[in-house]
Amino acid sequence: MNYDRWVREQLRKLSLSSGFVYTPPSEIEERLRRLRSRMRATDMEALLIVEKMNLYYLSGTTQDGLLYVPLEGKPLLMIRREWERAKVESPLEQVVLFTSTREIPPLIKSCEGHLPKTLGLEWDLLPVRDYLRFQNLLPGSRLVDCSLLLRETRKVKSPFEIRLMEKAAAIGKKVYQQARRLLKEGMTEIEFGGLLEAAAKKHGHEGILRVRSVNYEAYSWHVLSGITGGIVSQSDSPMGGLGLSTAFPVGASRKRMKREEPILVDFGTCYQGYQVDETRMFSIGKMKQKFVDAYRACREIHDAVLARTRPGADCEALYKMTLPLAEKLGYRENYLGPPGLQTRFVGHGIGLELNELPFLAEGRHGVLEQGMTFALEPKIVSPGEAAVGIENTILVTSDGYKILTPLSSEIFVV
Amino acid sequence: MNYDRWVREQLRKLSLSSGFVYTPPSEIEERLRRLRSRMRATDMEALLIVEKMNLYYLSGTTQDGLLYVPLEGKPLLMIRREWERAKVESPLEQVVLFTSTREIPPLIKSCEGHLPKTLGLEWDLLPVRDYLRFQNLLPGSRLVDCSLLLRETRKVKSPFEIRLMEKAAAIGKKVYQQARRLLKEGMTEIEFGGLLEAAAKKHGHEGILRVRSVNYEAYSWHVLSGITGGIVSQSDSPMGGLGLSTAFPVGASRKRMKREEPILVDFGTCYQGYQVDETRMFSIGKMKQKFVDAYRACREIHDAVLARTRPGADCEALYKMTLPLAEKLGYRENYLGPPGLQTRFVGHGIGLELNELPFLAEGRHGVLEQGMTFALEPKIVSPGEAAVGIENTILVTSDGYKILTPLSSEIFVV
Repeated sequence: MNYDRWVREQLRKLSLSSGFVYTPPSEIEERLRRLRSRMRATDMEALLIVEKMNLYYLSGTTQDGLLYVPLEGKPLLMIRREWERAKVESPLEQVVLFTSTREIPPLIKSCEGHLPKTLGLEWDLLPVRDYLRFQNLLPGSRLVDCSLLLRETRKVKSPFEIRLMEKAAAIGKKVYQQARRLLKEGMTEIEFGGLLEAAAKKHGHEGILRVRSVNYEAYSWHVLSGITGGIVSQSDSPMGGLGLSTAFPVGASRKRMKREEPILVDFGTCYQGYQVDETRMFSIGKMKQKFVDAYRACREIHDAVLARTRPGADCEALYKMTLPLAEKLGYRENYLGPPGLQTRFVGHGIGLELNELPFLAEGRHGVLEQGMTFALEPKIVSPGEAAVGIENTILVTSDGYKILTPLSSEIFVV
Repeated sequence: MNYDRWVREQLRKLSLSSGFVYTPPSEIEERLRRLRSRMRATDMEALLIVEKMNLYYLSGTTQDGLLYVPLEGKPLLMIRREWERAKVESPLEQVVLFTSTREIPPLIKSCEGHLPKTLGLEWDLLPVRDYLRFQNLLPGSRLVDCSLLLRETRKVKSPFEIRLMEKAAAIGKKVYQQARRLLKEGMTEIEFGGLLEAAAKKHGHEGILRVRSVNYEAYSWHVLSGITGGIVSQSDSPMGGLGLSTAFPVGASRKRMKREEPILVDFGTCYQGYQVDETRMFSIGKMKQKFVDAYRACREIHDAVLARTRPGADCEALYKMTLPLAEKLGYRENYLGPPGLQTRFVGHGIGLELNELPFLAEGRHGVLEQGMTFALEPKIVSPGEAAVGIENTILVTSDGYKILTPLSSEIFVV
């Protein structure tokens, strides 16, 4: 059978019956409109998008390729592999095939009429090697950084994006509801994490979580029990966990879970690329009162931040208000990490990646805007003992907030 | 409790009892010796290693930090987070704490006596933003690319590394042995993939696979059934599968698996960061004869490559010899991809990443060396119908080869 014809005739039908949600043309148009209004405040005549999540956001596809976005006129999607599939997936009109990077400047020139004087590239992730290649291929263009422009454009979510995050949350809810049945005394953290993930995948979770970084890796199975909750690792997180090896020293480990120790389950889910993050506490038998109290303190801090969550609220102030509250509750030394290793954020933006804008963190100026989504996660860490915490994914609404991950915050006792 | 003291006294014990394998000092010394002998052939006075897998290879830790490797003398491991843990994990002697990138030049100067005239950086993954920051911080140093140097050093595996890969293969073998019991008619590909992964994690798989790329993502659940086996996607692979969304258009999908269709399971496992890759065919009821024949052809090509696998064999020749063989067997048009989209490799190096040297591929000069490991994967793709194939991870020995993934190559019929 002819492959190209098969893709053109069958792929969309098969994809839709297998649960794909295509990004609508109007959604892409609106994203481009918002991006371009930000571009106008700079001297960038065009952007050349390379990184996959930015490519997905602006084109609706993650096929291997690049997107040229001029300030005016039609964007040009250049695809290396697989072209027929990209044409089915992206609502953009100009989708061309190329095989070598050398073809990019003539392609831009023939479609757009000229090459840009100033071109934005994603300096936050574009490798040096590719940058120097573009410099060589586009000697008349000044290359500048467009990373922040893209982060700023992506920070406010559309109703379409919020619906996908709510669907991810519905998957997460099913996972947490099943978790109590899956958790058994003596099981290793990673075995439990694997079962949660299998349940999540059955319900529609895509398996992969994403964080915008060369060196950090995201994963769903952040299951920490007792002592492993008190361990910090490479990640900028209150507690990294023991992990499985020095090559992967974060998240669930092969430690067996015991009765009465706090079991922290920080399980993220992903649907159509959109993620939510949530944390709940589990216990086999009754959790020690000391940790029940600490968990109650986390919920109090969580609720205090929510009470001030609305458009216009200052991001740094939302973080800073939690410090005296944690102190008042008796956790100054253990709030957001062990003494000396405490992190300085209580919330992080979330969407296609786990480290989007806004950050509710020290030094992060700016205010909340309607449509922003962030994970709010006050945690308390006792080295050598355990960690407790709660986390929900929050949407900023016109006059306050909505919890996208509504699930009981009681301790799940098995 | 004091966190630092806890880590110094307890972490190693807890890690070892939880299955961690620390990289021995002699292993790191030998890797540095081989790296430096390659450095001597260049003008690089030192390397500054940023990317996590290179960092792990040369230091034994993946804590967040950088490694400075001078041509002579002690390497300097600079850690941002978490320092105490890095000191437990790495056998290197000089492990210092830093908080800001600005501290790097004075740290190097105070430990090594001077700053390098020519410094190697990993241009294959280092983001432009970090590169320009280093350029600014080290105005007297010429920055050059050391990516290839590291790839070349890593391409030959030590007996220690091979043992870890064999352990990964033992996990994979258990997964494939359980797979037949887990596979049920009407299950979705991703549900089956999730169960395989949960089993793998229980047996010691680390969950994450790694590929050296900004845009490709590796994953274990490459389960393709019938029609989805004939779909190509963004990956440089004979068949990408349908996947779960346009954001993640590769691997297992929500398509339900049916009787008699070929089910291709390409499941990689990871242990202490070391990976093996293997593919086997499954079928619910008897697979159609046409695909049984195609699978036999894949095994014949696989065995023909192995018969010539030994130190000194030319990498490109090993790929090229398979083309007339595939044609003779009647699969010229469908070998390694659908007509027009065929890939041009039959093997890829594997270890800490899925795209290491060597490549048995068009245009790849160089010969096999003792200690190299690669995944050998002849596959046949019929668009609109199915894909079949076999894959094993192979070690090049002093006089031939060893299959690191020894598992029956019969079709697993359920």
